Amino acid sequence: MTPKDLRKRIAKNEFTQTTAGMCKGYLQANMLMLPKEYADSFEKFAKANAKAIPILEILKDSPYSKVLAKGANILKEIPSYNIFKEGTLVETSNNIEKYYTKDMVIYLIGCSFTFEAPLMKEGIFLRHIEEGLNVSMYKSNIKLKPVDNFHGSMVVSMRPVMKDRVADACVITSHYPSVHGSPIHIGYPSMIGINDISKPDYGDAVLIKKDEIPVFWPCGVSCENVIKGLKLPFAITHSPGYMFVSDKKDSEYYV
Amino acid sequence: MTPKDLRKRIAKNEFTQTTAGMCKGYLQANMLMLPKEYADSFEKFAKANAKAIPILEILKDSPYSKVLAKGANILKEIPSYNIFKEGTLVETSNNIEKYYTKDMVIYLIGCSFTFEAPLMKEGIFLRHIEEGLNVSMYKSNIKLKPVDNFHGSMVVSMRPVMKDRVADACVITSHYPSVHGSPIHIGYPSMIGINDISKPDYGDAVLIKKDEIPVFWPCGVSCENVIKGLKLPFAITHSPGYMFVSDKKDSEYYV
Repeated sequence: MTPKDLRKRIAKNEFTQTTAGMCKGYLQANMLMLPKEYADSFEKFAKANAKAIPILEILKDSPYSKVLAKGANILKEIPSYNIFKEGTLVETSNNIEKYYTKDMVIYLIGCSFTFEAPLMKEGIFLRHIEEGLNVSMYKSNIKLKPVDNFHGSMVVSMRPVMKDRVADACVITSHYPSVHGSPIHIGYPSMIGINDISKPDYGDAVLIKKDEIPVFWPCGVSCENVIKGLKLPFAITHSPGYMFVSDKKDSEYYV
Repeated sequence: MTPKDLRKRIAKNEFTQTTAGMCKGYLQANMLMLPKEYADSFEKFAKANAKAIPILEILKDSPYSKVLAKGANILKEIPSYNIFKEGTLVETSNNIEKYYTKDMVIYLIGCSFTFEAPLMKEGIFLRHIEEGLNVSMYKSNIKLKPVDNFHGSMVVSMRPVMKDRVADACVITSHYPSVHGSPIHIGYPSMIGINDISKPDYGDAVLIKKDEIPVFWPCGVSCENVIKGLKLPFAITHSPGYMFVSDKKDSEYYV
């Protein structure tokens, strides 16, 4: 299925699952919609924390993508959206057209799903893909650099990697800096404030076998975590793991 | 001090310590001297296990280096040699001229000391260097690929790395494949058969702080481990951590 076909099905509510493992080889993106008054601060904050929040496209005055997927309607071509008021999740929806006004700014932000095809191509097994699950995501205690009122902690995605392929996973993903790049932590979950690895804060739990090491990458869901902490009057994000699947090839983001 | 000056002092027995941290920016090498009858098998074995045993120069019919340090006498320009008979260490010496005959082959093999300067240049702290110690080395349970009669387990060097720089350490060292390249293991020592990380089999113990992860690289001392296991009638290696310091810049081995 091409990304365009998938997005068409999503817009018609025919595809409602996580996009993990979908359209292998294409870039996936996080989405954040904010009132314009927060745009400047958020953009500086993202720049200061580019490993967690790598902005790939900014849409002002229009909800249609120009760069990642020309003409795609960001308001309905993502399988699930989280709507926040005062930092509280008030609704989950598959369409946010009714919330959009010209006072909103939309950000598309790099997602680590993008480098999963390159990892698998190099023989690195990804359990959540094999099992048709969403990736495991956790709130960590890694502090983001504060800018203006924006502050918070990083959310991380975790993939168990065979012990003898961990270094390879670091090297491969380091070539994709605009979709989080190399891991932020390897090994001991408790060292980054994760006390129970079997209970992810977002996504699905996966087994970590005894010859595997948990490897953690920065995750765009950090934005949702920040929004909640700030108690912004209004914001919308994609639902964790339910991404915007773009028309860009992952290879275009290889450096 | 240039490598040439250091080797001169070594030849005069004025420098007798580990070469860890010496002549920063220059390639260091492991040394193995074997009777010619084992050369073919050893070379095939090294090729099959190039991450642990990356041969950089082979000297047949002469003990003088041609590639790594033109004219250097391998028989006395290394601070310490281990002499093995029937796989048993029978002597440690600073000069092996009396053992050399035209029936011997000398191998110079990549050493991870080479990528320590690049790691430090990128701000990755190396405790053994700061404390003037030899690197910690351990016998692991990682099996080398057997070839002919040659077989055995990998020896690994360990460096504690700050938790948020582990991925960077993988990426930096991956650019130096001929001096072992990226780590072979990250994190849990017991997963590679190391039961007490505070007791290295070779070199010095260093503290691992609570925000650091032990990172393991393949080590050329694997050769010594193999020689012992094979009980070869005769072989000489450098003493672990007492390396041949070459005239080659580490940057020449960056890929």
